[in-house]
Amino acid sequence: MDTYEIRLIPAEEFQRINQKPLARADRLQLLADMCRANALATVKRAGSGHLGSSLSSLDIVTQLYFDEMNLAQAGIDHPDRDIYFSSKGHDVPGHYAVLYALGIIPRERFINLRRLGGTHGHPDLNVPGMEANTGSLGMGISKAKGMAWAKAFKGHDGRVFVMTGDGELQEGQIWESLQSTAHQQINNVSVIVDGNKFQSDKMLDEIVSLGDLQSKFQAFGWYVERCDGHDFEAMAGVFERFKTISDKPKVLIADTVKGKGISFMEGPVAVKNGDGIYRWHSGAPGDDDFVAGYAELIERINVRLSSLGLKELRSEVIDTKAKNRERLKDTAEKVVTAFGEALVEVGKEREDVIVLDADLSADCGLRPFETTFPERFIESGIAEQDMVSAAGGLALQGLLPVVNSFGVFLASRANEQIYTNTTEKTKIIYVCHYAGLIPAGPGKSHQSLRDISLFGALPKMTILEPCNAVETREALRWCVNEADHSCMLRLIISPSPRTITLPDDYRFKPGQGTILHDGRDAVMFAYGPVMLNEALTAADILKTKGLSLKVVNLPWLNTVDHDWLKTTIADCGYLFTLDNHATYGGLGDNVLNALADSGSIAGRRLEKFGIDEIPACGTPPEALRFHRLDGQSLADRILAGMGRTSD
Amino acid sequence: MDTYEIRLIPAEEFQRINQKPLARADRLQLLADMCRANALATVKRAGSGHLGSSLSSLDIVTQLYFDEMNLAQAGIDHPDRDIYFSSKGHDVPGHYAVLYALGIIPRERFINLRRLGGTHGHPDLNVPGMEANTGSLGMGISKAKGMAWAKAFKGHDGRVFVMTGDGELQEGQIWESLQSTAHQQINNVSVIVDGNKFQSDKMLDEIVSLGDLQSKFQAFGWYVERCDGHDFEAMAGVFERFKTISDKPKVLIADTVKGKGISFMEGPVAVKNGDGIYRWHSGAPGDDDFVAGYAELIERINVRLSSLGLKELRSEVIDTKAKNRERLKDTAEKVVTAFGEALVEVGKEREDVIVLDADLSADCGLRPFETTFPERFIESGIAEQDMVSAAGGLALQGLLPVVNSFGVFLASRANEQIYTNTTEKTKIIYVCHYAGLIPAGPGKSHQSLRDISLFGALPKMTILEPCNAVETREALRWCVNEADHSCMLRLIISPSPRTITLPDDYRFKPGQGTILHDGRDAVMFAYGPVMLNEALTAADILKTKGLSLKVVNLPWLNTVDHDWLKTTIADCGYLFTLDNHATYGGLGDNVLNALADSGSIAGRRLEKFGIDEIPACGTPPEALRFHRLDGQSLADRILAGMGRTSD
Repeated sequence: MDTYEIRLIPAEEFQRINQKPLARADRLQLLADMCRANALATVKRAGSGHLGSSLSSLDIVTQLYFDEMNLAQAGIDHPDRDIYFSSKGHDVPGHYAVLYALGIIPRERFINLRRLGGTHGHPDLNVPGMEANTGSLGMGISKAKGMAWAKAFKGHDGRVFVMTGDGELQEGQIWESLQSTAHQQINNVSVIVDGNKFQSDKMLDEIVSLGDLQSKFQAFGWYVERCDGHDFEAMAGVFERFKTISDKPKVLIADTVKGKGISFMEGPVAVKNGDGIYRWHSGAPGDDDFVAGYAELIERINVRLSSLGLKELRSEVIDTKAKNRERLKDTAEKVVTAFGEALVEVGKEREDVIVLDADLSADCGLRPFETTFPERFIESGIAEQDMVSAAGGLALQGLLPVVNSFGVFLASRANEQIYTNTTEKTKIIYVCHYAGLIPAGPGKSHQSLRDISLFGALPKMTILEPCNAVETREALRWCVNEADHSCMLRLIISPSPRTITLPDDYRFKPGQGTILHDGRDAVMFAYGPVMLNEALTAADILKTKGLSLKVVNLPWLNTVDHDWLKTTIADCGYLFTLDNHATYGGLGDNVLNALADSGSIAGRRLEKFGIDEIPACGTPPEALRFHRLDGQSLADRILAGMGRTSD
Repeated sequence: MDTYEIRLIPAEEFQRINQKPLARADRLQLLADMCRANALATVKRAGSGHLGSSLSSLDIVTQLYFDEMNLAQAGIDHPDRDIYFSSKGHDVPGHYAVLYALGIIPRERFINLRRLGGTHGHPDLNVPGMEANTGSLGMGISKAKGMAWAKAFKGHDGRVFVMTGDGELQEGQIWESLQSTAHQQINNVSVIVDGNKFQSDKMLDEIVSLGDLQSKFQAFGWYVERCDGHDFEAMAGVFERFKTISDKPKVLIADTVKGKGISFMEGPVAVKNGDGIYRWHSGAPGDDDFVAGYAELIERINVRLSSLGLKELRSEVIDTKAKNRERLKDTAEKVVTAFGEALVEVGKEREDVIVLDADLSADCGLRPFETTFPERFIESGIAEQDMVSAAGGLALQGLLPVVNSFGVFLASRANEQIYTNTTEKTKIIYVCHYAGLIPAGPGKSHQSLRDISLFGALPKMTILEPCNAVETREALRWCVNEADHSCMLRLIISPSPRTITLPDDYRFKPGQGTILHDGRDAVMFAYGPVMLNEALTAADILKTKGLSLKVVNLPWLNTVDHDWLKTTIADCGYLFTLDNHATYGGLGDNVLNALADSGSIAGRRLEKFGIDEIPACGTPPEALRFHRLDGQSLADRILAGMGRTSD
């Protein structure tokens, strides 16, 4: 079997280099490249993570921690410490590598990126050295401002540095915070823009250009410097000058290269080789790319060490894996793919369908529509509020907008805009992608477990989550052609281990679901590929315990046909609901209300399963087990709920 | 009895002036002042409304409709019409006056501002001539962009004009839309900034300064002009030049005077006379001020008419009212006042309490804290997202932020920021002011009927709404001193006709409520001054029908003590909940879940009352009756729910 190794450069090696009396640029360049290697290794081991911006920002982060800030000396809990955090947050594998190198994050946590008990896919205070939870864009300068205000109020020393992306500057909150920080004279804030000129997979200037950024910051009352974000001497000079500026908050526009340090991942080359698409923003590289990229880094480090008269790098194996294994996502059915195909289909049928995206076109399955109907595709950049209100304007002029983003962003950040559109009684289809707990690797900033509750109280809004490709097409077509009001379509982003099979007599009817597994002793209502898979697994396990569980797919999350419900539950006394969402406001509450309203609740017990805690970060099985929503846990909970013991 | 008249200048008078061959400035000045008089009359008749910015913007709106746009000729439904709407929306009394003058809004609707069946307190498509629903700030340019995109896509002619406030430019969405409109080359958008330099009641530069606005717009890629927004020739020149600019979207910064046209309401004078506070932003003027202001306008119009050789203005009486009547809000208890006092109290006890405001200090009862502890009061401007994330930064540094805004803005617009803060497990108190249906005059952009649902699925978040001054103090103190997690406090803004009286043995205990009116036949759970008043009225009505209703105040909106609940409902079979909120996610769902979980639901019927439609605009009695939530309707519904006829 062909295998490859994943190796770690241990923290001691960083100490060895850091203690040498090297020129600043030599020392920092070595440390940064060593962090690059470790970041690459952990992302590859995790199977996902954001490399492009980890690599573009790493020289800056290295400079800050190894040259500029007092944090390594003061300690991560000292009130007078300098504070650094990244507002964009997805560059965190690089940040972790620096904190590991400094001995702040222990080895075991560091190598377990995106694992339960390891480090989170986006910054989380649970991880040592992290100063804020980030990962949803645009909040960082506001938060840094609050920290700096508190430092002044409490009389604590220490500067506050916050990193933003350049694409992130499309978010409106950035400009709110630039205005208020300058007005409030909270001058102990230094923003560093990781200006790598790329977004998810396209050049920033193709998405929503920022124009003359320097003029913008100046017009907003900030002291602005610009330099090469890979030039350590230049950056040191900027930070030195920042110390002398006390009458304004400060921003450094750091010109960086996305993917810096691994030749074929570097922005300009990579996008040319990718036919205009940048492939290294998120997701682990393939096995061969990993091996090549890692070798390139190590070789450069060793050449440099040798030229400085230092001995070769020592590293250790942390994992050995088979090469080019088949992955679930390459073979399994994905509802988001089905959605993308169905979108092209309705686009062909109806000229009024306009698709809006907020820089997640590929992730949301929109590329087929984008390329087939470029004149009806509106790229909105990372500006969900603007996108939603613009959709409102389109709808007022008689068009049918289909608005896409991850649910956690769309449902919450643009919530008031969605509400306002709703009061205009136009029809808009909102698609909340990346719904639910899985994938759990990116963590709580990306897991959408509140979107149903955020749409639920809107007047006249049908909420749906389909369970497979067939139902996805039906659901979209129903929203487009049947609904006389706005709808929210909820879609998971990753494949489920099992493709849900619908019966031959399947019909897609408002408020009605489908029995996927018949049973007599209890009924479980669930929806979507992830949770139905677990429910069916639970049914199989329960069968071995002599308990017969009926599993019902109910894709209508705020509509229940009372007659259908009565027929479905028959004379069953034990009912369970399984939400890929908080239990508050989800399918469980919907079913409970339907039972109460239809007079079917007496003599029955309903138990609601869902995620009411902060969602866990980890692999899908880890996260499901943590929340006791995997098939085995569900089986145990159902037995317990029915007063039976599990064995 | 001393009385005063409210008079209307009929539409025919506008036609008379508009048809005369007058110089542009003479004609428009007359029309604008006549609109000022009518706007003032309708606001006074309504008892509320925004005069300051109606007056500052009226010359611009008059110029657009009577001189610039094709709408009056094309008709309000023509696809090639020019479009105008106001993003800020609270200047709508002035806008209505123009539309009435043009014969677009009929007389009866026009004179019934903020009444059911009349015109809305903020723009609504139900009112003829309105192009968008606005009133929550910052969405207008995005929406205008969508409209202009649609016009181009469909091949329709007509320009799109959108008015913004200057304070409104603190909202981040504005900058999102400025970036994307320029990038997407949607150049058929003309923004007009009503630059009146005031916000709710202070000068803009005191809240959050905009700095060099012209440079900002230019840096964002817009074509910028600036002129006196009361100079008709200058504005005509700008709009003429705008026609020649096809490669950029366009913005006119119109320098205006808040309260323009009524000497004592004009910004600079008014703020001097008000000791730094501008008093005419919202709310109707007092009787004497109204009479004086109206007389000043009419006199100026008549002098001008006379100098142009035209006959005196004809107007007609639409209302005669007694002078200086006592008003409910001057005498009744207000929970927001109690909150403000309690906030000062906890501020004295705890130095870590920091209060944040988003330009609604007076409305939210924050002025006492603001003046007592200016060093612990952070004015954030109209930038809720920035405010909430900044609060997150304060909390991370060990402070206890109390974050204030109207619920409809805070809970929705800053929802993702609140979520992110919650995941950091710091403690922050969010105060959602102006909760619920009442006052209903400002309309759906201000009525907060979804805030519980927007907070409900957050992990560990206690939600509370107190019923009177005593309970408000208890609730705030509990949030500050007892809770180990973040809380949301929900407060109504206007007084209720009845002060809720608590029993002598009243105790404020988590999950427990208080019986306000004992009864045997049915139990109603409600909360807050508005709905408890209606519930108690219903109980009185039902008593006359021989039905004994227990009315329970339950201020804990997502916490129910099961034992207390069982004791309270005793053996009663009919339960009702009354939400000042959508039934989805409100107290009703909370009680339903508690009944189901505690095994108390069998043999009982629960009916939930609340507001599941778009909230009505009107007087409190009109809105309550419209939603069938007034005491009489509730009594009828309870009887019907119990299978009895109402008489």
